[in-house]
Amino acid sequence: MTVSDCVFCAILDGTAPATLVYEDETVAAFLDIRPITRGHTLVIPRDHATTLDDLDPALGGHVFAAGHRIARALRRSGLASDGANLLINDGEAAFQTVGHVHLHVIPRKHGDKLTFAKGFLLRRPHEPTSTANAIRAGLTALDAEEGAAQ
Amino acid sequence: MTVSDCVFCAILDGTAPATLVYEDETVAAFLDIRPITRGHTLVIPRDHATTLDDLDPALGGHVFAAGHRIARALRRSGLASDGANLLINDGEAAFQTVGHVHLHVIPRKHGDKLTFAKGFLLRRPHEPTSTANAIRAGLTALDAEEGAAQ
Ligand SMILES: [Zn+2]
Ligand SMILES: [Zn+2]
Repeated sequence: MTVSDCVFCAILDGTAPATLVYEDETVAAFLDIRPITRGHTLVIPRDHATTLDDLDPALGGHVFAAGHRIARALRRSGLASDGANLLINDGEAAFQTVGHVHLHVIPRKHGDKLTFAKGFLLRRPHEPTSTANAIRAGLTALDAEEGAAQ
Repeated sequence: MTVSDCVFCAILDGTAPATLVYEDETVAAFLDIRPITRGHTLVIPRDHATTLDDLDPALGGHVFAAGHRIARALRRSGLASDGANLLINDGEAAFQTVGHVHLHVIPRKHGDKLTFAKGFLLRRPHEPTSTANAIRAGLTALDAEEGAAQ
């Protein structure tokens, strides 16, 4: 389902631009256009759900699984994160700004507190093409590691 | 697996106190002892994992599913939330303070910005027994609603 005035559904339809880093049958992940840190990614369900209250639990599981995987990939990427904040703001009361459920994955590095605070205030893009390429390479590295472990 | 100096493993072992709101075979959820808002709950996997990088993806799915369910239950509880922030701080770089993966579920209400800011600074407990009872009642209400929908 898509909702005609939903900017994230427009991204899923291909009628609004986004820098995708991952997609499958159930979810898509793309760079936040106002990143707090470089690599700040949003994971969304393909089926429109305004809040977690409307979101199918299994689909929520897919969103989280993709976010978990992206957090792990970021550590293996050229962005060399040391961790991440994973965040869902559920409902306007919780500062949700786009009415389509989205999971923020915000890569973090040791000692980045000032960069993080500055990014939180400025939210300026950081070379989206190279950033998305780095995340995709991290996902490929994670795939290879998991393949080797089997 | 438990880790001897992990305070969350001690809660799971029953050797440290906590006000549980939910538990099953794979996860447990209890009140944060320093809540940002009333009903602030932590969901943890029973098996110790320090970061998301160490956490089994399926077990991560159980953690998120429980958090999703608690967020929905809070809206149906006496706490009457209008939403929630769901947050995992993954890694010390991302402000993780206890080295056992935990998902924060922080209930929010419309117009609570000042209360939220104050809670973020003070982090004082709010009657844990009645708070946990309210969340459990919300979970029961959600169960009943889902049973009726089948
Ligand atoms: Zn949408
Ligand atoms: Zn532990």
